[in-house]
Amino acid sequence: MGRRSLLLLLLAFLTPGAATAVPPALRALSSLHLSTSFRSRPAVAMKYSIHYIQQKVDHFGFHTDKTFKQRYLIADKHWKEDGGSILFYTGNEGDIIWFCNNTGFMWDVAEELKAMLVFAEHRYYGESLPFGANSFKDSRHLNFLTTEQALADFATLIKYLKRTIPGARNQPVIALGGSYGGMLAAWFRMKYPHLVVGALASSAPIWQFENMVPCGVFMKIVTTDFRKSGPNCSESIRRSWDAISRLTEKGTGLHWLSEALHLCTPLTESQDVQHLKDWISETWVNLAMVDYPYESNFLQPLPAWPIKVVCQYLKNPNVSDTWLLQNIFQALNVYYNYSGQARCLNISETATSSLGALGWSYQTCTEMVMPFCSNGIDDMFEPHSWNFKEFSDDCFKQWGVKPRPSWIPTMYGGKNISSHTNIIFSNGEIDPWSGGGVTKDITDTLLAIVIPEGAHHLDLRANNAFDPVTVLLARSLEVRHMKQWIKDFYIWCGEG
Amino acid sequence: MGRRSLLLLLLAFLTPGAATAVPPALRALSSLHLSTSFRSRPAVAMKYSIHYIQQKVDHFGFHTDKTFKQRYLIADKHWKEDGGSILFYTGNEGDIIWFCNNTGFMWDVAEELKAMLVFAEHRYYGESLPFGANSFKDSRHLNFLTTEQALADFATLIKYLKRTIPGARNQPVIALGGSYGGMLAAWFRMKYPHLVVGALASSAPIWQFENMVPCGVFMKIVTTDFRKSGPNCSESIRRSWDAISRLTEKGTGLHWLSEALHLCTPLTESQDVQHLKDWISETWVNLAMVDYPYESNFLQPLPAWPIKVVCQYLKNPNVSDTWLLQNIFQALNVYYNYSGQARCLNISETATSSLGALGWSYQTCTEMVMPFCSNGIDDMFEPHSWNFKEFSDDCFKQWGVKPRPSWIPTMYGGKNISSHTNIIFSNGEIDPWSGGGVTKDITDTLLAIVIPEGAHHLDLRANNAFDPVTVLLARSLEVRHMKQWIKDFYIWCGEG
Repeated sequence: MGRRSLLLLLLAFLTPGAATAVPPALRALSSLHLSTSFRSRPAVAMKYSIHYIQQKVDHFGFHTDKTFKQRYLIADKHWKEDGGSILFYTGNEGDIIWFCNNTGFMWDVAEELKAMLVFAEHRYYGESLPFGANSFKDSRHLNFLTTEQALADFATLIKYLKRTIPGARNQPVIALGGSYGGMLAAWFRMKYPHLVVGALASSAPIWQFENMVPCGVFMKIVTTDFRKSGPNCSESIRRSWDAISRLTEKGTGLHWLSEALHLCTPLTESQDVQHLKDWISETWVNLAMVDYPYESNFLQPLPAWPIKVVCQYLKNPNVSDTWLLQNIFQALNVYYNYSGQARCLNISETATSSLGALGWSYQTCTEMVMPFCSNGIDDMFEPHSWNFKEFSDDCFKQWGVKPRPSWIPTMYGGKNISSHTNIIFSNGEIDPWSGGGVTKDITDTLLAIVIPEGAHHLDLRANNAFDPVTVLLARSLEVRHMKQWIKDFYIWCGEG
Repeated sequence: MGRRSLLLLLLAFLTPGAATAVPPALRALSSLHLSTSFRSRPAVAMKYSIHYIQQKVDHFGFHTDKTFKQRYLIADKHWKEDGGSILFYTGNEGDIIWFCNNTGFMWDVAEELKAMLVFAEHRYYGESLPFGANSFKDSRHLNFLTTEQALADFATLIKYLKRTIPGARNQPVIALGGSYGGMLAAWFRMKYPHLVVGALASSAPIWQFENMVPCGVFMKIVTTDFRKSGPNCSESIRRSWDAISRLTEKGTGLHWLSEALHLCTPLTESQDVQHLKDWISETWVNLAMVDYPYESNFLQPLPAWPIKVVCQYLKNPNVSDTWLLQNIFQALNVYYNYSGQARCLNISETATSSLGALGWSYQTCTEMVMPFCSNGIDDMFEPHSWNFKEFSDDCFKQWGVKPRPSWIPTMYGGKNISSHTNIIFSNGEIDPWSGGGVTKDITDTLLAIVIPEGAHHLDLRANNAFDPVTVLLARSLEVRHMKQWIKDFYIWCGEG
């Protein structure tokens, strides 16, 4: 098991019937990655109109001339033709309405930037399915699910909007996105700088690829979050794995654990133990992603700074196995039962909506090959090495495709991106994805903003009274740069 | 006929059996475009080794994982590991050995730049056929013939060379190309700036696309070349078309013309008249492309400044139709019979090798949609308007594909490319392709070099005693910039 890759596990997880074989921590990775910003809707109504554009299924080949409907949203309440701008959300792996509702930052700055907001749905997600219900049928139908095709959709859409919306033609466009959407925003500026004057890439792990960052960095940051959120917290979790193993080696252990953790379905076979560990690991990873400074409701309803609350139950690692695991239950209960309504915990449910999970699984098996690992020393998890061969074999089994781990670095430049301009990479320091992100300025126009108290793309979320000052500063810096890009555009290109 | 598009004609020409239907001037456009630099081999032996790399047939999709062998050449006689560089020729629509032998400039500067020379063959040309003999079978097999796939081949090859050639890893690479290869060099720097420090794009008509330059600019430049090469020269040609029409309206006209022009096969039907006109137009276009200042042998063995020689026969437009056409024959004879060996002129032969013609025809029917037209007023040709609909229908008939004229501008930025850096666009002022080229500096690192006496990528040809001083200056400027790119690379990135 130690040799199984994390994402590989994720894949197993996504395969119906294989759930019990799933090691843990990293089912989460996809669901986590999926998240843009997650809070309840702000009081201000987010009013948008829904539109569709016909896109070529294949921008890069001419054998098929088939098209499909890509969905996009427009909100133009604050848009001004005179001196205005267009903020273009480069949709990621999910329903665009969800992202729209969860990217409060764009709504908050629309008036100041006289901006039209556009939210473009990523192909193969939400309603933008190239082959309708058959889109995920097989590798032939999935063949057009790539970052390159998605960027080409965005390019085509921007040209279309400029051509068809009176007053939009001579306006600067800025790409924005979070998580995978942040990668797309950055890559869009790199590949189509003629269409966007700049990009805000929030929590975009563009370096979480082959040979760019250590594969263990992600789990190390999760661990640091727990270590810093309470005394002995990460140590308690680290010790819990062996405690589970020891307990379940005994005949009555499975039964005892099932009771102690209030599991809805009792553990019955040794295979279930790995599943349990995976589910627990995923919970810690999830918490690291959404460790926001205020009550929020993404994967689950959660208190402010949820890891701190969790860690209150994990202060003492030097206790008996049974005691330790009873503490673990209390900790898990914070995450799964903050509302107090849950009667038991269900280890075969992931915490998140399954939105886009299929598509994302395919993407990790083709282009988006992100190596993850843990070693149990620098992190609090059980060791999992990154085994590409095994990963690749599983991909082939599930999707009939072979991943190409070196393609994204070849295509998008890897660490050598200094010739590009006008990209802001923002990262929250407590967000595990920051390990694969750009956290130092590369040039004076490729800027890194680090938000010490920030979890996953906190800056893209709507303003909140409990926001730490660092995220307010980050947002204000982001707005300042965006205004400068807009100003430069009007000086050099526009009519403003 | 006046409404037929020029490239459409080209397509017709390339269709077996359709040759007689071919209007004229623009068969030439493909063959002309095909040409990099064309001179007999220099005295200095060009020694290279031949290599192959396995490339994915489809870089942008994962349904097929098939590979094919891409050919490339390496010449490393002057290459130095210490402080050296790699000059990478982005192969265009033809056999790479031919381009290698005809790009003397790279060989001339190799020692000064301590450069390894690499010539990469373009997929679907020469030996680099993704599906062997079936590569041109149908639109399914041709599906992977795009500029994006070609650039991805180049990127993959460069990464491979850096990984496998000891000493190459930390060296700067410069992309070079002429004509379509020049476009690829420029686009490669735009899309993969992490892989090449700069690009020399010689005679690259990157703006010969939808709505960027007037469609008539090409033929206008051809006309200017003739107008400036001798008194009444272009006027004589302009009048020749009606003279041909008038003559061939008479019963004996076809016979007389066939005799007067020494045609190998007599004209027999009125359809042949259009074919004749096309062939003559193509000849003038060809001459404009290869109007080099010294004897050369590309399409045909030619004297120095061949248009001047041609124009000696076309001084008097105010003569009878028969006299005018006898003069036209003398002019054509310069082009087709400089050697004095030809016993008759064959209007069903084009002057060039058919190298790559099939692939190029497909490319013009998909991405590389270049509108051409003539009006008979600003140019010396009969009027041909650009009719996209007709063009598109013909493409569908021939290849089963529909051209997408707005794609190249969407992908590569059209006129809005100022955010890129380190590209030299060189153009010869007498080259008709300069009409679609970048002939003014865009920024201080996107430079235009115009060579007043230059025909098609004269600067990429080997040094010649008869080179005008302007091309010597151009080459020296090019070398100066390349040296600066190399120097900058070693300052910022290298070990030099």
